[in-house]
Amino acid sequence: MIKTPYLLFLGDAPDQLAAKVAQGIKDWRPENAVGQFRMDGCKADMGLADMTLEEAKAAGAKTLVIGVANRGGIISQEWKKVLVTALEEGFDLASGLHNLLREEADLVAVAEATGRMLHDVRIPEVKYPIANGEPRKGKRLLAVGTDCSVGKMYTALCMDKEMQDRGMKSTFRATGQTGILITGGGVPLDAVIADFMAGSIEWLTPDNDEDHWDIIEGQGSLFHVSYSGVTMALIHGGQPDALVVCHEPTREHMRGLPGYSLPSLEAVRDMALQLARVANPACEVIGYAVNTQNMDDDAARAYLADIEVKTGLPATDPYRYGAGKLVDALAALS
Amino acid sequence: MIKTPYLLFLGDAPDQLAAKVAQGIKDWRPENAVGQFRMDGCKADMGLADMTLEEAKAAGAKTLVIGVANRGGIISQEWKKVLVTALEEGFDLASGLHNLLREEADLVAVAEATGRMLHDVRIPEVKYPIANGEPRKGKRLLAVGTDCSVGKMYTALCMDKEMQDRGMKSTFRATGQTGILITGGGVPLDAVIADFMAGSIEWLTPDNDEDHWDIIEGQGSLFHVSYSGVTMALIHGGQPDALVVCHEPTREHMRGLPGYSLPSLEAVRDMALQLARVANPACEVIGYAVNTQNMDDDAARAYLADIEVKTGLPATDPYRYGAGKLVDALAALS
Repeated sequence: MIKTPYLLFLGDAPDQLAAKVAQGIKDWRPENAVGQFRMDGCKADMGLADMTLEEAKAAGAKTLVIGVANRGGIISQEWKKVLVTALEEGFDLASGLHNLLREEADLVAVAEATGRMLHDVRIPEVKYPIANGEPRKGKRLLAVGTDCSVGKMYTALCMDKEMQDRGMKSTFRATGQTGILITGGGVPLDAVIADFMAGSIEWLTPDNDEDHWDIIEGQGSLFHVSYSGVTMALIHGGQPDALVVCHEPTREHMRGLPGYSLPSLEAVRDMALQLARVANPACEVIGYAVNTQNMDDDAARAYLADIEVKTGLPATDPYRYGAGKLVDALAALS
Repeated sequence: MIKTPYLLFLGDAPDQLAAKVAQGIKDWRPENAVGQFRMDGCKADMGLADMTLEEAKAAGAKTLVIGVANRGGIISQEWKKVLVTALEEGFDLASGLHNLLREEADLVAVAEATGRMLHDVRIPEVKYPIANGEPRKGKRLLAVGTDCSVGKMYTALCMDKEMQDRGMKSTFRATGQTGILITGGGVPLDAVIADFMAGSIEWLTPDNDEDHWDIIEGQGSLFHVSYSGVTMALIHGGQPDALVVCHEPTREHMRGLPGYSLPSLEAVRDMALQLARVANPACEVIGYAVNTQNMDDDAARAYLADIEVKTGLPATDPYRYGAGKLVDALAALS
């Protein structure tokens, strides 16, 4: 686990979008962020207090989280100065960048000298077991999608928040870098060795109270040929009691695969459910989460209503219209 | 690639079964084995000429292949003496053991000093791409199974051999340690990082002649919750034109999963075909390969006949009764 709370490092972000990791933390775990650190020329702003390292330390921050994508895939000398000083002043560092903190000799040397941690959340830090498939106590929901990047993480975070607001027992379980940085823990599933994928998800979602729900972030899609194996491992390792099907209606082809069109919601529902029932025969699809960010309000509402008529299950854009319907369906299931 | 031909190291094998890697090489690539090396007390015998390292070198052997499982998961001092001498006499070493040659400091030192290679086939030696899903030239068959260890590798090897005997163009593509040692190359899929699984299979089965078949060794099962993600990656990365469904009828539950019963042949056929058609809409199931080693001849023949009646497709035990029927079906497809 990464020590919280964080100081969010925005560096010299060229725009708000470059700081989407910081945005995710600010949106979903504001209590984890005591402030932001911006360098000269930074164009991103989370609306948090700008702090020096010293001020953030005094405010209780334990970890400097790199909340911004780096340019050109290298950690610049300007960043380095801040990172080294942060280590010296007692911060751990956490990063989801492709180029690893641990591969920077100067950072490693300072971290060792100061006894601080370097968290590269792209790389597993746990030796996961091989999945044993045994039934676990507690309930689990998994977000599955028609494609990659259709809103599975946001759907899971929205549902978890709605459940918390209602006083239900739930835990968002991160399976990707951004989710891990938001919550401080999880499994970087895309970096796990093939044989241990399903086991890593069993490890992530252990026995729990009978009325507790793990809300598991999905990855990839059964219909995305590059990453379907990762999705499969989530379905069997997660042993879900409930599935929510996520979709983005304006996409013209599968992400990164121009020759592949998107599957229908029904095809994803049927395939995912059939496979999920191998591990958990009681599994049900409880509804649809649609990312309508590219549709106006009328079109979005009409699209959602149409899904509800066709499938007989609730459909919403949980980020735009709330996750209430989906949580209602989940509550009705348990 | 591992340099062939080999000298097969049988060590101090306690019985014939312990030397199953050597047996696989002897059975399927006898031209790769110039002889065997046995230590005092060895109870395995491949029926090959017993050779000293010097004699094997003179006979052209390039690599000493560890064809036997080690006891207790350690490479003993008795083995070490032979392995060190082999490196000094000019042999590369190849091993599928869990404990790696490269983690033995003395072997690494001698290999560096002598310029020899240490091949640990459990570990990928290639940086695989992410799968792009683009159609490839040539044809591919994939063996899928109701369970792990039901005979997918033997089915693929039998079919490849039958095709070679008929003068058809085919290549067996290994995806596990034993297959890699048998043929000298392949992908150790269970050790590949999740994001690159499907890409590794695309890499393994590239464009080829239009009338060439890659015969891809399967792994795991869509219905085996520990390894289904690996199977999924084979189905999408392999982009198969044809599937053969493999089965072992006497098994009482899924391997290593006492709570899970085996799926029906029909369930595997339907699920695998539907998923395979995401990557290759022309994919067909061409028949069934049944491992009947635990059945007498009458029972085996009756079982196979029954499958043929029920499914309308050829069924055989390719190791016991030949792969002719399956290759006939493949030839009819192309």
